[in-house]
Amino acid sequence: MKFDHIAIAVKSIEQSSKIWKDLFGFTEITEGTEITESKVKVSVFEVGDIKIELIEPLSDDSPVARFLKKRGEGLHHICFEVKDIESTLEELKNKGAKVIDETPKRGVFAKKTIFLHPKSTGSVLIEICEM
Amino acid sequence: MKFDHIAIAVKSIEQSSKIWKDLFGFTEITEGTEITESKVKVSVFEVGDIKIELIEPLSDDSPVARFLKKRGEGLHHICFEVKDIESTLEELKNKGAKVIDETPKRGVFAKKTIFLHPKSTGSVLIEICEM
Repeated sequence: MKFDHIAIAVKSIEQSSKIWKDLFGFTEITEGTEITESKVKVSVFEVGDIKIELIEPLSDDSPVARFLKKRGEGLHHICFEVKDIESTLEELKNKGAKVIDETPKRGVFAKKTIFLHPKSTGSVLIEICEM
Repeated sequence: MKFDHIAIAVKSIEQSSKIWKDLFGFTEITEGTEITESKVKVSVFEVGDIKIELIEPLSDDSPVARFLKKRGEGLHHICFEVKDIESTLEELKNKGAKVIDETPKRGVFAKKTIFLHPKSTGSVLIEICEM
């Protein structure tokens, strides 16, 4: 299990990108990719071996829109990358983890991805994606 | 600038450690270290090249206690590691970043560390520490 990225919920990727590009000088490797299934737009920055993802809601009924309304902009989730998502999920579920969706979706870079329910992971929203 | 760790605010390190140790199998490299200056207790887990820090308030007037009261448990801050904290801060301040304290404190592993004000970093609390 490898740390893949940290995601930040933002109102506007265009506005927030400035912080990560201009202030910190990180490289933007994908800019405003739309993931319609998850109702978000994503920009990804490389910071050495890990990535920072900015996520902006595509509509008011996006889970990220609800997060912004409740908590405002800020740290949203962390993601671990695994070799085999199905066997990892099986193992995590056996140890008591709950998933938000039953089957993996396609995330940014078309990776198979699933979210664990924060109630089973100490109030931290955790994404698991496949290499 | 290298990604160093992500910190999670928790009510009880003892309770929350189970998630990172037992569910995910990460190695705890320091257990409940007290940083009296910052009024927190910290446990650190290794996840490859980066670390996950659990931070528990030592008293009700700890900034982490205020965070827990306002937002509950969850993602608290991210930390980047730099070679020379003074010159990095000089550069970041010139680009508009604000700091919470004017001079670096000693954090976990006795590293020199400072926090940038989230108002200047898109509502994300960012720590800068020296290698």
